[in-house]
Amino acid sequence: MLLLRRCRSLTRFGPLNTQRNPVAPAVASCAVRLWSSGGSEDQRSYRHAHGPRWRHALAGLLAGTGAVLAYGLHHHQADQSDSTSLQTIEKISTPPIFTQEEVNSHRSLEDGVWVTYKGGVYDITEFVAMHPGGEKILLAAGGALEPFWALYAVHNQEHVLEILSEYKVGELSAEDQKKQQTVKSSDPYSSDPVRHPALRINSLKPFNAEPPPEILSDSYITPSAIFFKRNHLPVPQVDPDSYQLRVEGLSEGVLMLSLKDLKTKFKKHTITATLQCAGNRRSEMNKVKQVKGLNWGIAAISNATWSGARLRDVLMDAGYYPDVSQWARHVQFEGLDKDVTGTTYGASIPLNKAISEDGDVLLAYEMNGEDLPADHGYPVRVIVPGTVGARNVKWLGKIIVSAEESHSHWQQNDYKGFSPGTDWDTVDFKSAPAIQELPIQSAITMPADGAVVDRSDEEVTIKGYAWSGGGREVVRVDVSVDGGKTWQVAQLRSSEKEQAPAPSPPPGQAWAWKLWEVTAPLPQEAQELEIVCKAVDNSYNMQPDTVSPIWNLRGVLSNAWHRVKVKVRED
Amino acid sequence: MLLLRRCRSLTRFGPLNTQRNPVAPAVASCAVRLWSSGGSEDQRSYRHAHGPRWRHALAGLLAGTGAVLAYGLHHHQADQSDSTSLQTIEKISTPPIFTQEEVNSHRSLEDGVWVTYKGGVYDITEFVAMHPGGEKILLAAGGALEPFWALYAVHNQEHVLEILSEYKVGELSAEDQKKQQTVKSSDPYSSDPVRHPALRINSLKPFNAEPPPEILSDSYITPSAIFFKRNHLPVPQVDPDSYQLRVEGLSEGVLMLSLKDLKTKFKKHTITATLQCAGNRRSEMNKVKQVKGLNWGIAAISNATWSGARLRDVLMDAGYYPDVSQWARHVQFEGLDKDVTGTTYGASIPLNKAISEDGDVLLAYEMNGEDLPADHGYPVRVIVPGTVGARNVKWLGKIIVSAEESHSHWQQNDYKGFSPGTDWDTVDFKSAPAIQELPIQSAITMPADGAVVDRSDEEVTIKGYAWSGGGREVVRVDVSVDGGKTWQVAQLRSSEKEQAPAPSPPPGQAWAWKLWEVTAPLPQEAQELEIVCKAVDNSYNMQPDTVSPIWNLRGVLSNAWHRVKVKVRED
Repeated sequence: MLLLRRCRSLTRFGPLNTQRNPVAPAVASCAVRLWSSGGSEDQRSYRHAHGPRWRHALAGLLAGTGAVLAYGLHHHQADQSDSTSLQTIEKISTPPIFTQEEVNSHRSLEDGVWVTYKGGVYDITEFVAMHPGGEKILLAAGGALEPFWALYAVHNQEHVLEILSEYKVGELSAEDQKKQQTVKSSDPYSSDPVRHPALRINSLKPFNAEPPPEILSDSYITPSAIFFKRNHLPVPQVDPDSYQLRVEGLSEGVLMLSLKDLKTKFKKHTITATLQCAGNRRSEMNKVKQVKGLNWGIAAISNATWSGARLRDVLMDAGYYPDVSQWARHVQFEGLDKDVTGTTYGASIPLNKAISEDGDVLLAYEMNGEDLPADHGYPVRVIVPGTVGARNVKWLGKIIVSAEESHSHWQQNDYKGFSPGTDWDTVDFKSAPAIQELPIQSAITMPADGAVVDRSDEEVTIKGYAWSGGGREVVRVDVSVDGGKTWQVAQLRSSEKEQAPAPSPPPGQAWAWKLWEVTAPLPQEAQELEIVCKAVDNSYNMQPDTVSPIWNLRGVLSNAWHRVKVKVRED
Repeated sequence: MLLLRRCRSLTRFGPLNTQRNPVAPAVASCAVRLWSSGGSEDQRSYRHAHGPRWRHALAGLLAGTGAVLAYGLHHHQADQSDSTSLQTIEKISTPPIFTQEEVNSHRSLEDGVWVTYKGGVYDITEFVAMHPGGEKILLAAGGALEPFWALYAVHNQEHVLEILSEYKVGELSAEDQKKQQTVKSSDPYSSDPVRHPALRINSLKPFNAEPPPEILSDSYITPSAIFFKRNHLPVPQVDPDSYQLRVEGLSEGVLMLSLKDLKTKFKKHTITATLQCAGNRRSEMNKVKQVKGLNWGIAAISNATWSGARLRDVLMDAGYYPDVSQWARHVQFEGLDKDVTGTTYGASIPLNKAISEDGDVLLAYEMNGEDLPADHGYPVRVIVPGTVGARNVKWLGKIIVSAEESHSHWQQNDYKGFSPGTDWDTVDFKSAPAIQELPIQSAITMPADGAVVDRSDEEVTIKGYAWSGGGREVVRVDVSVDGGKTWQVAQLRSSEKEQAPAPSPPPGQAWAWKLWEVTAPLPQEAQELEIVCKAVDNSYNMQPDTVSPIWNLRGVLSNAWHRVKVKVRED
């Protein structure tokens, strides 16, 4: 879509480019670049030359999409540059050996973009502009391609490998090839799993990371590997064969359930649900005044399908009967993850959410059709759709039906909202309810803050996500390119792009986000756009306009209008 | 509370007043006033003298409350002015006769404050400052006291009549005494009931009116007489003996229920629930840009207790069984109120709200412990707690279980929210969901916009209401006196002042509003305060900061921060 729009705008400039005859010098410049050491003078001329050449190359490609388009594009360029050194590499009998450090140092168009794949080192600088997935390819810069190709199955095609082979510049040193395996150590986090390198890490131990925003809104269902990770403690190693879930607090005594019990004794139930960390978008609060907590961007939110037994069914099996609601008010969960004192992670949810037929609370053992990944609670976690991430306890060890909320730090003295006037000297954690359902939220994933759009494009495409807690469905997203003075309504999407729209969920059971997109004309004269989005749910809840009045000392519940500034480049 | 605070500040000024010896001239001035014709020169001197005299009078009264305090206050003043004409009136053998028009012309402290009671005419100008209920007494100015005393039962005491008798100035003409009875006519609204004169009328036919804000937050349970009225059509006359409710759409055929059936065949269920018109606070949207609809202030919201049969129980009796939810999605309601073409008022709610045990939807026949008043749907109305007023159909005639929403104008082409960029040329009513649950709301009932506070008071007491739809409990109200720069947390109240706090409702069943109050210090130097309130519900939904970005062509869902400006008077 983005590519086709680019093509449209290129068509308008076709004659201009032809007059300038930019192709030959541009390709020459690229060829020089391949073997240059990358001085700053050269970088500038490279970038200047690069733009028009790239445009011309694309101008002939108004049909075809995806990798096929990229493949054609590649050959188009190769034909024009057969006298350059692009094929020279393959003629070298003993390939140069590079260290991982050397590869690491090539992570930008200025320094060159190098990647590794199965021990080979590739300089793909030239390919970046032709990549059908756009500049997302830069996420792999300086590192291995494998985890990204695992994420995007479209790369598993022969012609993609063919393209890659032509950019080979050497081999990774044997030592560094070995190092690409994870090193184990004796610290409590040593058995944490390997993570996807695209993740933006907020904290390594415990591991907390979010995907780059532009990847996030690519898929309606977030691939598990880049689904945001929010761990409070080291990832526990749980043996699925000896795993036992303990259910207590009901008059029939303690119920113990193996993983097999969960999978076979109860009907498997699947839902699509978005999880969001209470601290998503905390970084915007930090700009107002420092808060305590991880400096999350806009991507501590993701959407997946989850399968498992219904908590309701398990509680029924454990002896729940309607009279229990006379004395019980909460269902507590304890994780198997623990700190050095042996204290486990814990949280609770209201009993009526746990037991309601419409509540859809799962003891999930699958995420996106596979066993839960280690970072997401293998072998069993709670999924409390519509409810803040913190109550979706991972590595679930124990369920307790109780008159009281969880006594854990995270339930009692964390994850609560306060007035902007409340500080650490005056805060009384008892005065605020534990966050459960989250409020309406939305954010812009593309363009990024600080991006540049061309005046000649005449319009800008804006993408993002929107979600609300409590099963409230997002019914509208308003987008402004003038800081909130005028608004356009975005197109909402609740399935993958190529799929038919999902049917509307029953009221109160809209657990999954909506992705949205809008194309707005560039305002005349504007040199900078302030792009703003705000969503509305089916209770007509709106997002607050600004951050300061909802600032709170823990930096949670940051759901003011999201704003990004974009520069307009005159031609 | 307000009175005691006034007294505290008066204590500080005691010595000053004594030095000035203001009592005698002030009382003399009042005495003159009683028989004066009210020239403007005199008004000014009256007002100037009045302040200090009143303060001095109160300074001795640091104990006692309510009417008793007022009574003491009255006698305190009477003692000091026994040579004045206050008692003179009773010595007049043939009392002067006044027309209603003459009484009407005395509606302010400047023109004098006259009221009628059982044919007597009273000049209560002097009593206004001593009234325990404050200046609310002015609501009755120029008219009859009876409807106000009916509202506030505290007046039904002998010493109150004793006080009143001393202010008698004459009798109302016999002709006007007769006119105080309602005149019937032949127009479709001729059988509409008599309404409380305190109501602020937005439309007479159909009748739409709201109470004055300062009265609204006086009572946790709004008295039925001043509960906001929102009629779409003339009030139908329904004979309770022949009344039949028709329930259809279920496989067992049509069920007809008499009023007696409803009262005897089903368990009586009572809830306290706030109703709010979708157009509450529309006047603030009108200030941004004209919208279509009644120009409601902040009081198209009220709180009452409602008793009746549960809709769930009635549907069960009519043949509802769980499989119905396979094909049915909505429960439609039709009123007995109709327009000239015979079209009745209609609306629908989602089936899951109607049938849920926690939904608490009632077919109510009582409001505040009495039969429903005519304006509120006598003999039977629907109460859909947590849901916009428009779906709480009054004078209920028919219930239809259906796969479709109500086809009525009010469900399909009204009561929906749109983007601020949508106008009457571009609006597509199908694109937005019918409003059901309402978003978080709050407003300031005291002080009023434009009110004046004295610098010497050093602080200002601010009161208001807060409510959220969908059973979401209000958990916090933030109040600012500097336009939103800094915030204080208000005290919340969920029962009448003298009662113990109500227990917290189960999650998702907080149907009733909270009243709130906060005392804020007057900021140094400030000559004007911009008082702002914003509420938070237990899903941590917040109100938007400003009106423009939520403006919509129907002026519904107006829930931006409420703001009032108050002047600070230097001493």
